[in-house]
Amino acid sequence: MKDFKYYAPTEVVFGKNSEDQIGKMAKKYGAKRVLLHYGGQSAERSGLLKKVREQLTAEGIAFVELGGVVPNPRVSLVRKGVEICRKENIDFILAVGGGSVIDSAKAMSVGVPYQGDVWDFYIRKAFDKACLPIGCVLTIPAAGSEMSNGSVITNDENGLKKDYCINEFRCKFAIMNPERTYTLPAWQTACGAVDMMMHTMERYFSKDDDMDITDNIAEALLKTVMNSASILMREPENYRHRAQIMWAGSVAHNDLTGCGTSDDWATHNLEHELSGMFDVSHGAGLAAMWGSWARYVMHENITRFARFAVNVMGVPNDFNNPEATALAGIRATEKFFASLGMPTDIHTLIGKEISDAEIDEMADKCSNGGTSTIGGLKVLAKKDMIEIYKMAR
Amino acid sequence: MKDFKYYAPTEVVFGKNSEDQIGKMAKKYGAKRVLLHYGGQSAERSGLLKKVREQLTAEGIAFVELGGVVPNPRVSLVRKGVEICRKENIDFILAVGGGSVIDSAKAMSVGVPYQGDVWDFYIRKAFDKACLPIGCVLTIPAAGSEMSNGSVITNDENGLKKDYCINEFRCKFAIMNPERTYTLPAWQTACGAVDMMMHTMERYFSKDDDMDITDNIAEALLKTVMNSASILMREPENYRHRAQIMWAGSVAHNDLTGCGTSDDWATHNLEHELSGMFDVSHGAGLAAMWGSWARYVMHENITRFARFAVNVMGVPNDFNNPEATALAGIRATEKFFASLGMPTDIHTLIGKEISDAEIDEMADKCSNGGTSTIGGLKVLAKKDMIEIYKMAR
Repeated sequence: MKDFKYYAPTEVVFGKNSEDQIGKMAKKYGAKRVLLHYGGQSAERSGLLKKVREQLTAEGIAFVELGGVVPNPRVSLVRKGVEICRKENIDFILAVGGGSVIDSAKAMSVGVPYQGDVWDFYIRKAFDKACLPIGCVLTIPAAGSEMSNGSVITNDENGLKKDYCINEFRCKFAIMNPERTYTLPAWQTACGAVDMMMHTMERYFSKDDDMDITDNIAEALLKTVMNSASILMREPENYRHRAQIMWAGSVAHNDLTGCGTSDDWATHNLEHELSGMFDVSHGAGLAAMWGSWARYVMHENITRFARFAVNVMGVPNDFNNPEATALAGIRATEKFFASLGMPTDIHTLIGKEISDAEIDEMADKCSNGGTSTIGGLKVLAKKDMIEIYKMAR
Repeated sequence: MKDFKYYAPTEVVFGKNSEDQIGKMAKKYGAKRVLLHYGGQSAERSGLLKKVREQLTAEGIAFVELGGVVPNPRVSLVRKGVEICRKENIDFILAVGGGSVIDSAKAMSVGVPYQGDVWDFYIRKAFDKACLPIGCVLTIPAAGSEMSNGSVITNDENGLKKDYCINEFRCKFAIMNPERTYTLPAWQTACGAVDMMMHTMERYFSKDDDMDITDNIAEALLKTVMNSASILMREPENYRHRAQIMWAGSVAHNDLTGCGTSDDWATHNLEHELSGMFDVSHGAGLAAMWGSWARYVMHENITRFARFAVNVMGVPNDFNNPEATALAGIRATEKFFASLGMPTDIHTLIGKEISDAEIDEMADKCSNGGTSTIGGLKVLAKKDMIEIYKMAR
């Protein structure tokens, strides 16, 4: 096992009554002038934004609003938010929405005190950690951004989708009411389930086989998500299972499932290029890529893929043939994704055949023009990326 | 499921090289004048205290020392520590040891700014939250105090053992090197394993059956601890399994295993009286009490005891007779405790027969003279406590 650090300081307020704490929590963490940041109109229609405004007003907290965050949040809106925060002397950013809104808020938070352009952080030209504090009211369980250290932003000028990760990005508080997720369409619920599964699996498929507690917790989490997601396809207003999914999304990405293991993230990297180029849903893109990645790398740790097959996917263990067990597990995972309506290849994902030129362009971006690699379990160069994209096409 | 809050802000530095961070972490959290607090001579003999002193000195941090913490830490030493902190203008307390040392440090931390006697907090006469910040270097995995909000102190004047729980007690950082636990005797390792299992089980045996992710994580944790503890009985210097136990102790008591469930704590309360009266090891006392508690309360939620039997203890499920399954699970748990050399009754624990008068005295203290109750799964009054003590005698 590897030495590790674990730091998940976000104060979580979870449940039906959690929204009554929005104003109090903002005040507790020093908010006086808030940027209220959100996406489209669903938070308005549902009455959630009204509630947030009332809560802030009741605590005597001033606020300015900035909506319009889209999936794969854009750096152009982040830049606009940074300007507003400076002009309005904002001291706290409150994100109301899912991972896109929270990631956008995180980008602003580090952009405000920085002299240059906020995109610098995402292309490793700047490494500042000074941030405005952030809180969130989560409405889409998926990305885990509410407890994570990461922010993923898309540059609308060149289609690049990049991340920046610092502990200072972790939300001071996260308000989570599972009832707010009742109206999520099945597609979005499924994308979220895949995303949180992949956050766990990117850490689970490692070279290190000896962090039992982390692996056992990861398997428990994966089985919970699979069961609850399946039930939600039929019963979208099932509180119990909305709650499992919502909390699982946070635990999957607050680093608990990676304590003592190395991690991979190749599937995420490959998918970021897909959603950068085709603006597809992140979760759907992950489902489309994972099986091909798994078949390409499984021989690096066949035992681990066999264990996953048996312990998570419930595949019978062929003790004499771990490879057969591993492959059955990969097929079972794809079958599960498909049962949620998720694509398991790129054609289904983007609705057309992808060209060799498009694959080459994605692999080129993903490898920074062939100069860098991705992956931990197996290190992947540009030629490997092309191979995996072709397997997934 | 219940609404819940989750807040575990402790920055954990875990692994073989973690001790190199002691000075840096103390500095990061603002330490300028430290009270270095520890127990007996083992931390001195092992060279750990020398390392801590060097690390503090290297960062230019002044320190004053106070050793002598004993298991079931005494309020008399806490009072002495409070005096020293005030006199020496201490701004940070660094605990080096196990749960007793950390709990003692927590008590001091809230005692220093308080005008009255620190025991007031433990008997619910004072409710202040202002604290000196605390960090720790953990050497005994068991109590989980390194990430918990609780402190348990024994009053050496009257034998009362009481707790005080506030989020401000959570350590700013925790340094954990599993190698430091190689020299723990088997008995102490076993006591620790029982303690962390019970921290999980006190939350697992609840009336609420619908927080799947929490229950699944709890089961994963329990199975990990059982497996690793068994191996450590034979291989005390097995790094992998020392690491599982060390991290499990933190996760078992940082509230993760209680998210969305109600909790019980009756076994802990019953045990506190045993260790208050006979000064026994907390973990051993828990092992001695649990089976009798379980048999007394199991009918409140027989399904949950059957699930525990099957999912944690590996007992075959008698689908037609959940009570038989549940009882087999309780027997299997006691058998497991015994396999670690733990007592499963009071006679074995204290080495003599306990008298009716002693039982009555313990039940009287535990119920505050018959005026209060304990337990969540089943609420227990003084007469119930007497019954359970008698079953366990």
